[in-house]
Amino acid sequence: MEGSAQSEDKRVERSKAKVLAETYRQLALNGISGVTIEGISRHSGIPKTTIYRHWPSRSALLIDACSRFGSVPEVPDVGSLQGDMRALLIDLAERLQTANWNSVYPSIIDAAERDSVIASMQTAMQKSFMTPFEIVIERARARGEISSRQSTDDLVAILVGPLFYQRWFSKQKIDSSFIDTIIDLVIRSTSDVG
Amino acid sequence: MEGSAQSEDKRVERSKAKVLAETYRQLALNGISGVTIEGISRHSGIPKTTIYRHWPSRSALLIDACSRFGSVPEVPDVGSLQGDMRALLIDLAERLQTANWNSVYPSIIDAAERDSVIASMQTAMQKSFMTPFEIVIERARARGEISSRQSTDDLVAILVGPLFYQRWFSKQKIDSSFIDTIIDLVIRSTSDVG
Repeated sequence: MEGSAQSEDKRVERSKAKVLAETYRQLALNGISGVTIEGISRHSGIPKTTIYRHWPSRSALLIDACSRFGSVPEVPDVGSLQGDMRALLIDLAERLQTANWNSVYPSIIDAAERDSVIASMQTAMQKSFMTPFEIVIERARARGEISSRQSTDDLVAILVGPLFYQRWFSKQKIDSSFIDTIIDLVIRSTSDVG
Repeated sequence: MEGSAQSEDKRVERSKAKVLAETYRQLALNGISGVTIEGISRHSGIPKTTIYRHWPSRSALLIDACSRFGSVPEVPDVGSLQGDMRALLIDLAERLQTANWNSVYPSIIDAAERDSVIASMQTAMQKSFMTPFEIVIERARARGEISSRQSTDDLVAILVGPLFYQRWFSKQKIDSSFIDTIIDLVIRSTSDVG
């Protein structure tokens, strides 16, 4: 009996993995609006009823599939705000210009404008991507490296906003001199005692 | 004969206007992926063949409809880079937080990832929205207000990127103190003779 329950578990895991892989594939290909339970069932060979047994709704499946896009970066700790920010921004620039989720993220942003469940997911994803930036800024604040009263949220937006902008809006290459320009601005402003 | 040609012209204008109004309505409601010629024909009462007579493709119609979203801001000229940038950023913040095209633009960004015609349109729209920023920066450069070697494109991205980021990614309110923080950073860095 135990053996049979185990093989049943394995079968469930395999079919869930198939569904997630197909969802991921369709997301990367067509963005979120191109993903339907119908299409996932057809391409994965897993019946719709089985899909709905594991995920109560299309949104629930999308959230699960999206959570596999891009891991959260590690938090660097080189001892200075400048060094930590540089490591994080270089890593972000690399991800923005190569990772799979780049072509999917705008479809999530778009869907979030009209779907409150996707909007909550997007907020959570964004928050988790940006946590390392918050940590290095708060750590620098604790070390006394940040003397200005700028909020951490504002500093994060000033650091990463220009990179997001270049990737999705102006469609320009993000190089290391651009990153250095941003860091230079932020370092001067945060160390201002005036 | 002339009178009849004129009324024919008017009828054409009226049906084109109906199609554009319906396209605009569907865009605002569902984003670009929700717009179909089929649906526009059904809701506007204009036959598909007539729509295709005026616009050779769905992309051509979308481009025409999108070009009516948000006019390009006027170029301020208060005599200083700081004043001009402030006027433009306050105007941009207002637009980002109230205008109709806010909920449509992510769908354009998304479609641009997969459709090269939409991508060209998006690049042209973005360029035209940002032209006033380029003009005030170039004018300040000519006045000798900008002593750094930062490119105009980089400065535009550093100015507007954080606003775009707050609107669509972090979903935070853009207030005037945030705008002042950004301008302060840019003014210091551009006036640096070092």
